Amino acid sequence: MTEDQTDRLGHDIVAPDPEPADPHIGHAYITAKDDYLKRLRRIEGQARGLQRMVEEEKYCIDILTQVSAMTKALQAVAMGLLEDHLSHCVVDAAVRGGPEAEAKIKEATDAIARLVRS
Amino acid sequence: MTEDQTDRLGHDIVAPDPEPADPHIGHAYITAKDDYLKRLRRIEGQARGLQRMVEEEKYCIDILTQVSAMTKALQAVAMGLLEDHLSHCVVDAAVRGGPEAEAKIKEATDAIARLVRS
Amino acid sequence: MTEDQTDRLGHDIVAPDPEPADPHIGHAYITAKDDYLKRLRRIEGQARGLQRMVEEEKYCIDILTQVSAMTKALQAVAMGLLEDHLSHCVVDAAVRGGPEAEAKIKEATDAIARLVRS
Amino acid sequence: MTEDQTDRLGHDIVAPDPEPADPHIGHAYITAKDDYLKRLRRIEGQARGLQRMVEEEKYCIDILTQVSAMTKALQAVAMGLLEDHLSHCVVDAAVRGGPEAEAKIKEATDAIARLVRS
Repeated sequence: MTEDQTDRLGHDIVAPDPEPADPHIGHAYITAKDDYLKRLRRIEGQARGLQRMVEEEKYCIDILTQVSAMTKALQAVAMGLLEDHLSHCVVDAAVRGGPEAEAKIKEATDAIARLVRS
Repeated sequence: MTEDQTDRLGHDIVAPDPEPADPHIGHAYITAKDDYLKRLRRIEGQARGLQRMVEEEKYCIDILTQVSAMTKALQAVAMGLLEDHLSHCVVDAAVRGGPEAEAKIKEATDAIARLVRS
Repeated sequence: MTEDQTDRLGHDIVAPDPEPADPHIGHAYITAKDDYLKRLRRIEGQARGLQRMVEEEKYCIDILTQVSAMTKALQAVAMGLLEDHLSHCVVDAAVRGGPEAEAKIKEATDAIARLVRS
Repeated sequence: MTEDQTDRLGHDIVAPDPEPADPHIGHAYITAKDDYLKRLRRIEGQARGLQRMVEEEKYCIDILTQVSAMTKALQAVAMGLLEDHLSHCVVDAAVRGGPEAEAKIKEATDAIARLVRS
């Protein structure tokens, strides 16, 4: 069904990446990588579902309801990534201390402010 | 490039729809249909871009910045659809008057509340 | 208790208004005016509660929880005002039709966009 | 003018606090306490301004614009408190390490999720 299509297509596009990321410089979220990819493929499927709804001229309010659901799914991914980032990058910087720790906190707060406003 | 791929793929999936929507029962946004489809395909491309970023283990904050941009793009689509909906469905119901007009307003306000909260 | 204090003070400030609004040019929300005033006085009380929490150096997370609650209360007032506005001003303009109707829809959508982003 | 009234009244209410907070158990934001109090008194003034607008039956859209401004001001306070919290409480917990650090991160992320949704 659609979900499978989505996964397959998503994979086809991502696959030909010729230079796999060096695992030694991987960021915090690597442990949950597959989970994030799965959620993002579902979000990609939601974007395609919205196109179908517009194509078939579905009722505006039903489309808006789907946009809200998709936005919520996106924000949930953002919250997961943020928690991973705070747990690893920010905590590591905090342990090392100094101006870098402060810079990391500022950078994270700015990213949060963009999420709150978006 | 990526945008083209996105368009092509998006089209491949949407195309096989066997029963084209009846133009006579089309909703308000039909006039801007191509514009909405274009924006939604770009959003689909952003969802795929996020997968690539996670796959390649890009820096968390950069991914969050992309999530914010994608959320903003989604909200902009929602605002466009909402304006179309108010201009057509709600205005039509208002002109006819009666309880249906009230119901349309309530329905639109509920959709807006979901957007504000999402 | 606090709620009473809030009400009394709020009233003291609002009362000396020398020129009461002309009821004939009143806007839609007049029917629910007392309800809105009550909710806004409670929000004013929440703003005072936040000051107390900062003054007494309460735990940051508890203060943030209160900020979220206050933001939700504000957004609920906004949704109520918006529904009133759509039901009256926008519906009236729709019935009269013409460019004024369009302008009212555009104005309402812009206000909604500000709420979604704020 | 209004701002002064607001400040004076806000101060009158906050002042009689009989038990000043013990500075030794103060939280991170103490350094910026006066700034936060000033901003929160201004927000309290905005809540009072909204009551006046409703009382005088101002135009709905103008009231909604003020609600958006007040929400933005509140979110800015929240972002400031959050940055202070991350810089102090979370960084301290990170340096000590162990399950408490993880719990602090989880708690902060939950608070951020509430802000994003509110």
